[in-house]
Amino acid sequence: MGEESGYSSSDKDVLFDDAVLKRLDLSACQFAERGQNYPKPGGADLLARPLQRGDFAKGILRLLSQLTRVGDYGRETYEAQFDAIKALPGMTYIVVVEDCSKQRVVATATLLVELKFIHNAAKRGRIEDLVVDEEYRHLRLGSFLLELLTVLSRELGAYKVTRDCRPPLEGFYKNYGYVNEGQLYLSQRFRD
Amino acid sequence: MGEESGYSSSDKDVLFDDAVLKRLDLSACQFAERGQNYPKPGGADLLARPLQRGDFAKGILRLLSQLTRVGDYGRETYEAQFDAIKALPGMTYIVVVEDCSKQRVVATATLLVELKFIHNAAKRGRIEDLVVDEEYRHLRLGSFLLELLTVLSRELGAYKVTRDCRPPLEGFYKNYGYVNEGQLYLSQRFRD
Repeated sequence: MGEESGYSSSDKDVLFDDAVLKRLDLSACQFAERGQNYPKPGGADLLARPLQRGDFAKGILRLLSQLTRVGDYGRETYEAQFDAIKALPGMTYIVVVEDCSKQRVVATATLLVELKFIHNAAKRGRIEDLVVDEEYRHLRLGSFLLELLTVLSRELGAYKVTRDCRPPLEGFYKNYGYVNEGQLYLSQRFRD
Repeated sequence: MGEESGYSSSDKDVLFDDAVLKRLDLSACQFAERGQNYPKPGGADLLARPLQRGDFAKGILRLLSQLTRVGDYGRETYEAQFDAIKALPGMTYIVVVEDCSKQRVVATATLLVELKFIHNAAKRGRIEDLVVDEEYRHLRLGSFLLELLTVLSRELGAYKVTRDCRPPLEGFYKNYGYVNEGQLYLSQRFRD
């Protein structure tokens, strides 16, 4: 396996089928219109792909810690959560961008899918846990992941996709078709 | 089956194990403090229980249509969605209150559970699709379901539970411990 020595076949276990990303029509996305050299699903160098079981070693938790508190847990807990999410197919699409030259995940975002009885028994999408490594923030990887998961959400049949965010980010999301309909977002915290 | 003639064993198929509700400690809830005659899980008359496969016949879609657009679909589609949700155990807790004297569901709310890698590989809860039949709105069934699912969320290990709502409802949710942390809630709609 050359560069990937120590990376076992179980590490390559994917959260969902990569074909889901590869078949998306991204031609209408802004990064495509800009002719941007985006991390094409299946591409080289910067590779967008589903989360893998081995991404613990490629720094997924270190990356997420740039977003919020991750906590100090080990590979076993990570793999157990990976397996629990994978056991619920079609619910959670966690995409990462890997810098293949460094075998390191440098951006990630999640599309969470909910099955509803309203809106003709529709699906509904949510964008979660979008973060780009600070060293890679000039590459518009956040925009790329947002557009990718928005398209995926529509392709999966969602009637809408939502995102909660801090107020300074409203303009960013508006660029990609998200609007503030005036709904409030309330929360109750049980622990840190 | 007496009153429930025509209601088959498949109709009694539950979305999740009723024991999940029955073992909750609800003694600290406001409806308990008020000494309110609330629809105790497993109680009679007004019965709080998991959604059943047969609730199509008990008016679940008519009830949801008081919340938002449901669309015009039949029992087969309802059951297919029920089965799809049930096939993903631990994700979706849809509770209904049935008026047993009328064999009719008169209130419902959903707790959606997400598995995260942040916050020590935590769960996170969301309250969704809370609605009470207009004829039953004097009974505080909405408060009851909100408290029930908030307690359930904590018992399942969620680090937080969230709710998006229209601004006039903010005070209602604040009564039950939900706070506005200033996050924005944005959406993108693909269809009605």
